[in-house]
Amino acid sequence: MSFDVLQQKIELFENPTVVGLDPTRELIPRSLLIDAGSSVNAYLKFNRVLIDALCDIVPAVKPQAAYYERLGPVGMQVLQNTCDYALNRGMYVILDAKRGDIGSTATAYAEAYLGADADYAVDAITVNGYLGSDGILPFYDAAKKHDKAIFVLAKTSNPSSGELQDLLVGENRVYELVGDLLEKLGADSVGEYGYSRLGAVVGATYPEELKNLRDRLPHTFFLVPGYGAQGGGAKDVAGAFDENRCGAVINSSRAIIGAWNKTGKQGDDFAEAARAEALRMRDDLRKELRY
Amino acid sequence: MSFDVLQQKIELFENPTVVGLDPTRELIPRSLLIDAGSSVNAYLKFNRVLIDALCDIVPAVKPQAAYYERLGPVGMQVLQNTCDYALNRGMYVILDAKRGDIGSTATAYAEAYLGADADYAVDAITVNGYLGSDGILPFYDAAKKHDKAIFVLAKTSNPSSGELQDLLVGENRVYELVGDLLEKLGADSVGEYGYSRLGAVVGATYPEELKNLRDRLPHTFFLVPGYGAQGGGAKDVAGAFDENRCGAVINSSRAIIGAWNKTGKQGDDFAEAARAEALRMRDDLRKELRY
Repeated sequence: MSFDVLQQKIELFENPTVVGLDPTRELIPRSLLIDAGSSVNAYLKFNRVLIDALCDIVPAVKPQAAYYERLGPVGMQVLQNTCDYALNRGMYVILDAKRGDIGSTATAYAEAYLGADADYAVDAITVNGYLGSDGILPFYDAAKKHDKAIFVLAKTSNPSSGELQDLLVGENRVYELVGDLLEKLGADSVGEYGYSRLGAVVGATYPEELKNLRDRLPHTFFLVPGYGAQGGGAKDVAGAFDENRCGAVINSSRAIIGAWNKTGKQGDDFAEAARAEALRMRDDLRKELRY
Repeated sequence: MSFDVLQQKIELFENPTVVGLDPTRELIPRSLLIDAGSSVNAYLKFNRVLIDALCDIVPAVKPQAAYYERLGPVGMQVLQNTCDYALNRGMYVILDAKRGDIGSTATAYAEAYLGADADYAVDAITVNGYLGSDGILPFYDAAKKHDKAIFVLAKTSNPSSGELQDLLVGENRVYELVGDLLEKLGADSVGEYGYSRLGAVVGATYPEELKNLRDRLPHTFFLVPGYGAQGGGAKDVAGAFDENRCGAVINSSRAIIGAWNKTGKQGDDFAEAARAEALRMRDDLRKELRY
């Protein structure tokens, strides 16, 4: 089952990290932009070299759709090729697209990313559940049918996430009720490690909420953004894991793919710098999780 | 200002309709699929012929991103060409993408669709505001900078929309608080007709909520899905308008672009059938709104 495969990769590498592939022009070294001929080729080459540098130590990558959509239709080709390349290198691929719509339209999105003939074939996709279960189930049904998984936004990592997500409904916060819905809907797909195909996005920047949700949602796998550039550390994410160190994967994007900015070599070492930072993050997490 | 332009087009045509361009294989007549050579060409031709058939009676179109994403990178080219074609024919183009993410990523989405160099140049985009104002403001800032507009999901038209949107926070529903946030954030961009660049999506399938929101949010322009195939009628949407018949645009998708399914001519008349249904809807709305 999809999250079982991810969990197995995590255990193999003793590293619950997912690296965000969020390429911007500023993050791509100038020499690569010149060598690659076109800026679109440079984006793809940047991703491929990063995947090669990381695939034996990091179990998963998470391309963020926005950075590819911004490049127009050719950007979607880069996204497609990036996902294919990462899958071929054995990585688990989570597309961060935060899609969400009503029934038939959600089905179209699900076919684009999770279907048998999906143009963008990935292992999991992020979903925005504001439309309720109508907007979640088409993705979840596709996930069950094609051995995939989804992550629905519960408590996001950004500063204003509380404006809606923390609203108090009786004695519960909105994000807790979203979590409860995921736990309930996912009950029919619990795998070997105790987690369903219906995961949740819960930010590292709210460690207390993260720990509370872990206790509240014992069968919901977490995708945890906010480590690194957004300010979260290993201590902040520890609460995302169960007593077997399972149930979560921690994302870092810019801190890893832009690590070359801190080495003073104009990006000629971007792959080595990314690997070094990924190893630092891995060791940071290992220490906190007592691997 | 963006919604002023839309309102002027609506007044010119005496028709507050937006036609959803949500092409599926089933909605494209077989003869068109054969003639066009490739299915991707058929999608584009279908849209172009529909735009030609509608652009002198309907002020706006709303392509739904999911149906183009499902076709892979070439589908995004169809989306791009469709938006360009509709703009060239003088239509107001609303891209229904329901994007939403945290700051820097939301900015990337905004650049893709609302920026000066946007690959997909449209007049307005739909946004999912579950992430709070961090997820809305990058789109809104781009809209203000480039004379565009956005619609944020408030109360959607689907059956389970209430699961989250109707939750009671003190004495208010979640969707009402989302509406209040839009009214507040939009206060600095109110145009000639009294509406800001920050609109809301409010479904026709909940007419009472629609009327209440109209009263509550006097400066928030509404995009109203749910008329036609989803079951709403002219009476159900009347509450979306202010006393000057301003402040809303009503969407119909399948009922118009798939109208040929009801004429028994295998789709050879798809353009005429769409036009006839668009005229019927226009007259239905005109009657209810006493044009």
